[in-house]
Amino acid sequence: MAQDLQHVEIVEVGPRDGLQSQPTLLDTATRIEFITRLVDAGVRRLEVASFVNPRRVPQMADVEQVIAGLPRRANVTYIGLVLNRRGFERAQASGLPEVNCVAVASETFSQRNQGMGIADTLTGIAATAADARAAGIRCGVTIGASFGCPFEGEVPVDRVVDIARRLVDAGVDEIALADTIGVGVPSEVVRLVAALRPVIGAIPLRCHFHNTRNTGIANAYAAVQAGVRVLDASCGGIGGCPFAPSATGNVATEDVLYLLERMGLHTGVSIEGIMATARWLEGPLGIAVPAMVTRAGLFPRREVCVA
Amino acid sequence: MAQDLQHVEIVEVGPRDGLQSQPTLLDTATRIEFITRLVDAGVRRLEVASFVNPRRVPQMADVEQVIAGLPRRANVTYIGLVLNRRGFERAQASGLPEVNCVAVASETFSQRNQGMGIADTLTGIAATAADARAAGIRCGVTIGASFGCPFEGEVPVDRVVDIARRLVDAGVDEIALADTIGVGVPSEVVRLVAALRPVIGAIPLRCHFHNTRNTGIANAYAAVQAGVRVLDASCGGIGGCPFAPSATGNVATEDVLYLLERMGLHTGVSIEGIMATARWLEGPLGIAVPAMVTRAGLFPRREVCVA
Repeated sequence: MAQDLQHVEIVEVGPRDGLQSQPTLLDTATRIEFITRLVDAGVRRLEVASFVNPRRVPQMADVEQVIAGLPRRANVTYIGLVLNRRGFERAQASGLPEVNCVAVASETFSQRNQGMGIADTLTGIAATAADARAAGIRCGVTIGASFGCPFEGEVPVDRVVDIARRLVDAGVDEIALADTIGVGVPSEVVRLVAALRPVIGAIPLRCHFHNTRNTGIANAYAAVQAGVRVLDASCGGIGGCPFAPSATGNVATEDVLYLLERMGLHTGVSIEGIMATARWLEGPLGIAVPAMVTRAGLFPRREVCVA
Repeated sequence: MAQDLQHVEIVEVGPRDGLQSQPTLLDTATRIEFITRLVDAGVRRLEVASFVNPRRVPQMADVEQVIAGLPRRANVTYIGLVLNRRGFERAQASGLPEVNCVAVASETFSQRNQGMGIADTLTGIAATAADARAAGIRCGVTIGASFGCPFEGEVPVDRVVDIARRLVDAGVDEIALADTIGVGVPSEVVRLVAALRPVIGAIPLRCHFHNTRNTGIANAYAAVQAGVRVLDASCGGIGGCPFAPSATGNVATEDVLYLLERMGLHTGVSIEGIMATARWLEGPLGIAVPAMVTRAGLFPRREVCVA
């Protein structure tokens, strides 16, 4: 079947990347309700868990119980983040159909975030990808800090391309470019996507943007213009960097949906459903979500405003 | 001299569009200091006043005193907003070299905001443009609600084009497209700019975006890609709709500068100077400005953040 170029797939990362940096811990039942509401809103692919040490990331405690309580729906895929073999084994035991690994495009950031350098990370990912293939589990990899590193500054395009080449050799099923610290601009998105295409061939390319410096939606637009058809987004825009509380994080799902819908693209996700879920989420988290469409409301609609 | 296509002119609208919707009134000296700081940061064109009834818009009281106190610098242009003949006469008397008029691309919004319909507004603008020409004053016109109306919803491209044609006939010096309520998306920017080009010919086209639904920076990117080389922006992102307090307003100057600079374009404006001015402005206004770059900081720089 020919690909529908008007369709953009949304990968909802709020239940993992979003919640992971929230100071308020949600209990198992609330996390299950959050994910269920997202599925009811039409999301068909969601990152729901990180298989990390719960002492290090208490927001991700009881992930096995969360996964066991998720609605089983046709065409809905749940993804678990795995950072090592132990994580992969837990993901496999939980029955998830897809895992996501992370490589970081900066040696310093990799050492600090992953506890190992880029080369060792890629060796580990190759092993995980082989295990996943043998187990019939889909394996995607996010290249973190693809647009800049908090420690090393600008990241050369060639380094991201080299990492992507290694991931292709490892047989991964999808590659995601992440602007982990929210520093990228659209021209960089265009350049990086163009540089990766010849290397990754038919492997789907996904983009993960943060809106820290207000460029997240512009980058999503540039990615879609460059042919990317899979975008990560977080309901309500929750997430961000736990060490920079004033910086907002993931692009908000409803803001991305507003952009795409008004441009004539479709996702199958209900923007009203996401906005309602974001408003509901404000209760358990005790915060006002940063998503702007949820604050401002949809257009067209009737409202009173004087220029 | 050939136009430098890498140069984008920033029209700083914080002192008028920004302050006008702030609940806190700034005194004359503070408004002069605000504008002086912006000029010191390298801004060369600024909307500094609205010649309206101060009983209706108390934020714009004493505009003549503000203008009299402004620094006189080479190559710095101050603009005054005028809505009628009385306003133009005040602008002329104050010695401003440039006025800006507003037409609204929706009949209902025009009636409510201007107190008259589109046709009457355009007749008045034609008279103002003639007066301005006779007086050696530059006259630009903003087409408000070009991307959508709070009362009528979507605005047809043809209507904006028709208004632009009338403005060309009136001999105006510049035409600005304003997304007054912050509903536009990049594809609409591209479409509208393309539709206007054959009509406006060599008349400069300027764009004025609001970030209400998080599309302001994406729209600025699309406008620049479409060849627009004049952008309105507001220091700190202050402004917005006084009747929708939760909605943010004008795109922040520092956020626009971050986008442009990281794309390799230049403006002559110091992003550090604008950020410092935004932080200073938080004092007199008693608010945290919404500009994201001022909150998150510049890149590249060293910061600590874990993905």
